[in-house]
Amino acid sequence: MVVPEAGLPAAVTIHEVGPRDGLQNESAVVPTEVKAEFVRRLVDAGLGTVETTSFVPAKWVPQLGDAEDLFAQVRDLPADLPVLVPNERGLDRALELGARHVAVFASATETFAQRNLNRSLDAALDMFEPVAARATAEGVRVRGYLSMCFGDPWEGPVDPARVVDVGARLLGMGCAQLSLGDTIGVATPGQVTALLARFAAAGIGADKIAVHFHDTYGQALANTLAALRAGVATVDASAGGLGGCPYAKSATGNLATEDLVWMLTGLGIDTGADLGRLVATSAWMAGHLGRPSPSRTVRALAGER
Amino acid sequence: MVVPEAGLPAAVTIHEVGPRDGLQNESAVVPTEVKAEFVRRLVDAGLGTVETTSFVPAKWVPQLGDAEDLFAQVRDLPADLPVLVPNERGLDRALELGARHVAVFASATETFAQRNLNRSLDAALDMFEPVAARATAEGVRVRGYLSMCFGDPWEGPVDPARVVDVGARLLGMGCAQLSLGDTIGVATPGQVTALLARFAAAGIGADKIAVHFHDTYGQALANTLAALRAGVATVDASAGGLGGCPYAKSATGNLATEDLVWMLTGLGIDTGADLGRLVATSAWMAGHLGRPSPSRTVRALAGER
Repeated sequence: MVVPEAGLPAAVTIHEVGPRDGLQNESAVVPTEVKAEFVRRLVDAGLGTVETTSFVPAKWVPQLGDAEDLFAQVRDLPADLPVLVPNERGLDRALELGARHVAVFASATETFAQRNLNRSLDAALDMFEPVAARATAEGVRVRGYLSMCFGDPWEGPVDPARVVDVGARLLGMGCAQLSLGDTIGVATPGQVTALLARFAAAGIGADKIAVHFHDTYGQALANTLAALRAGVATVDASAGGLGGCPYAKSATGNLATEDLVWMLTGLGIDTGADLGRLVATSAWMAGHLGRPSPSRTVRALAGER
Repeated sequence: MVVPEAGLPAAVTIHEVGPRDGLQNESAVVPTEVKAEFVRRLVDAGLGTVETTSFVPAKWVPQLGDAEDLFAQVRDLPADLPVLVPNERGLDRALELGARHVAVFASATETFAQRNLNRSLDAALDMFEPVAARATAEGVRVRGYLSMCFGDPWEGPVDPARVVDVGARLLGMGCAQLSLGDTIGVATPGQVTALLARFAAAGIGADKIAVHFHDTYGQALANTLAALRAGVATVDASAGGLGGCPYAKSATGNLATEDLVWMLTGLGIDTGADLGRLVATSAWMAGHLGRPSPSRTVRALAGER
């Protein structure tokens, strides 16, 4: 039953992160052909943006060690297929293969920059600057992930002024969009509203912002609703709720794409996604991973319960 | 981190339904002493309203066949302890034991009335009328559950005008509060806002209404947020996410109390609940039931993952 709610966007872009952020955090190693089929099925299910892989050294993230092979297999699909690049070497590999959209992964907190990137927050931004400059010079779109925007497992609450400052620096480098991450899933809706208001006050509108929520404490969809009310129209989600973050304690899966699509469909918000195909894809991938999907919608509709 | 959101209530009453609605729908039979300890621990955790049991015939719901014994063990706890009564015989038993708050369970749809109560919607309301009249005459508070308010597994979408009509009849009988149930968990936030607006247009304010969401498709907390915005200040929830509905296909657990408390605490909304004690209680009960809690907050904080 479709009942719109006043003040929400008419359409939302789902930035699907399952193949990259999801599989990166699964202990099982998925064969390249299965990953390629996963990406193909997600595109077939109507997702226009599917983040495919990460051009990080295989020794850092062995699960994504097949980035070149995988990207070569899917790059001609009719969709926007962003890839994560940690540095200039990663950018070189992505550009060689014809990537048209890359993402860098920054942290709003000093401690997580050290833990995840093994360098200071400033040093990480210095490393991303030439990446963004070269990519934009070649007409390649750049997305800036900003993790730990609402809480940090080591530092606790995160100062919104710091988040806006780091976000502004990423946009200043040429990032077309920021993805604000609640990496440990602690945020509640008032925090989301307040942070987006801080960005707006700094002249950074909701059109530059995506949200990336984790469902550690079951808050991801309520937080998404708060972000939609503030005008955000790009939402990151992971098919079947795959993923998490191996470097952050207590982190669990991303917001499940299917749970998001259920809400947006009910609200009459256009996403282009076909829920039945998404559920079938996530149930199929859960079989490859050997465990049920954490998505409630997938469990209800795939009859896994 | 506490960040309030404008337009929400300052305090919320959590109507805990775990011992009744939760355990009623578990296949395991829990010993009376364990149930009594469950209720005690929930009250100790700061929950002021704990729906304790149901005075239905044991042949209908064997899980709650010990209603008299259980209620006698907990009735002196310092909390509001509602009990469900299906008919006058159930009311007799509840009043004999000193219950001060009873609930009747109606349906917004004809089919579910037939399936759940084995009589027409009108006949069910006729059955509740003397129950409500006698209870209120004795100064006992009456709550009216209204199930299938947003969708019915057999009838599909439910006409909001029908829901308001049945709700008005329950209030007319003397019910002090309506609990609007999304028994199969299909609702999305626009539906919630719209239904509450229909009630308001009929002169039934949010002060007369509680919401009762199921998390079948992961929507319960987002729907709760929509209800809070409409002024609702009583929210039903089940410790650890216990429960469901054996008569409705695809029904799964209630909104988990802990996930609700996480959101309300973050929003600076007073509930009186102690999250740590709730998590410990739900982890303890999960041990008795022999399966992990479906609450994401319980899993994250109890280290069950």
